Amino acid sequence: MSMTLYLGTKNYSSWSLRPWLAARKAAIKFDEIIIDFDQPDTKSRILEVSPSGKVPVLIHKELKIWDSLAICEYFAEIEPQLWPEQSDLRAIARSVSAEMHSGFMAIRNEMGMNVKAKHRKVTLTNQAQEELLRIDQIWTGLRQQYHAQGNWLFGKFSIADAMFAPVVIRLKAYTVKTSPTMQAYVETFYNDSAFLEWINDAEQDTLIVPRLECGQV
Amino acid sequence: MSMTLYLGTKNYSSWSLRPWLAARKAAIKFDEIIIDFDQPDTKSRILEVSPSGKVPVLIHKELKIWDSLAICEYFAEIEPQLWPEQSDLRAIARSVSAEMHSGFMAIRNEMGMNVKAKHRKVTLTNQAQEELLRIDQIWTGLRQQYHAQGNWLFGKFSIADAMFAPVVIRLKAYTVKTSPTMQAYVETFYNDSAFLEWINDAEQDTLIVPRLECGQV
Ligand SMILES: N[C@@H](CCC(=O)N[C@@H](CS)C(=O)NCC(=O)O)C(=O)O
Ligand SMILES: N[C@@H](CCC(=O)N[C@@H](CS)C(=O)NCC(=O)O)C(=O)O
Repeated sequence: MSMTLYLGTKNYSSWSLRPWLAARKAAIKFDEIIIDFDQPDTKSRILEVSPSGKVPVLIHKELKIWDSLAICEYFAEIEPQLWPEQSDLRAIARSVSAEMHSGFMAIRNEMGMNVKAKHRKVTLTNQAQEELLRIDQIWTGLRQQYHAQGNWLFGKFSIADAMFAPVVIRLKAYTVKTSPTMQAYVETFYNDSAFLEWINDAEQDTLIVPRLECGQV
Repeated sequence: MSMTLYLGTKNYSSWSLRPWLAARKAAIKFDEIIIDFDQPDTKSRILEVSPSGKVPVLIHKELKIWDSLAICEYFAEIEPQLWPEQSDLRAIARSVSAEMHSGFMAIRNEMGMNVKAKHRKVTLTNQAQEELLRIDQIWTGLRQQYHAQGNWLFGKFSIADAMFAPVVIRLKAYTVKTSPTMQAYVETFYNDSAFLEWINDAEQDTLIVPRLECGQV
């Protein structure tokens, strides 16, 4: 295959985690190259590979695919199990994935992903609190419906889970109100060996990027 | 089929236009129901059909699909021609579509879609200007490569064009610097009968929503 996935610093790069996890869970082989954030050459290194100036980017021979969701769809063409098999469930999985992809701005701003952070205190705006409630609604609704098939949103792991993986990390990093379902879903990730591989890598990152150390301790 | 697409006010609802245009171009039959913005019952009418509280939503029997991109992917499963046929072009089409879906925030804020507006003067922030340059780069790059097959981004119409349709309307509504390619691409839309059907409907909207009348005249 010889695909290379370009990622940001693992401790911080929420968008990079999504396709990385999808590929690992689907046992799709790839090389990875990390472009650390906020270094003198970060911008030029990203622009060398990424038309949008952002990571993640997947390079497969001549082909460059940028954007997490587009990369996930490419992986799903290689390994269709990454989406639910039933057409209607696939449509719902794409709806929650796209909702995550284009929304939840307050959570992104106020609870920046940070693997090494633990239980930081944070005072959320109303919008962020509403977004957390919406996430609870999505997770609880889906897990109630599909729990007979497994612990992921649609029972078996799908791209929808990959899209929410950074939220799971945020719930460990910050002290916010969570429901029992949210906690159970977080534990599903922290029992998954592919996810834990990312967590371990990120815990070993030595780079601290002050700009990204949001969330008041 | 008996699918119903719930849309916002056509003059303003950029996200609604995208799946609507994709379905029309693919000759997929659907009924449409408009939920006008900023009315006393807008919120409750949207929440009745939309889990995310946003339009567009597609209802197909029991199934609800929310989010423009997820609806477009559903249409592409019905009519695969909505994505380029070649796997690598499809990946690029999904990359530009996802880039639009998750980005271009300054353009969205400073040049709200408004079909009835014409040549409004607007003073753009640097970020909006950079985003316009990036759009020019995407459109020009793709049209140079695929013009032998037609005037859309990948020659034939695809979901990537649907994703950029609201930007085309914005370029008519506001006076901003555009390249010849951008102008030619705008004309491609204004010569397309499906797109013009939306434009005509929107021109007939009697509702004015003050909140959405951005762009200083
Ligand atoms: N919509 C994009 C967003 C990608 C994105 O924002 N990436 C961030 C890192 S997580 C980035 O590259 N930032 C570097 C920069 O903006 O210079 C996706 O889904 O991949
Ligand atoms: N990511 C969504 C965005 C949808 C969206 O923002 N829709 C706007 C109208 S264009 C909306 O429903 N606004 C009503 C509200 O927020 O109350 C999509 O792609 O469909």
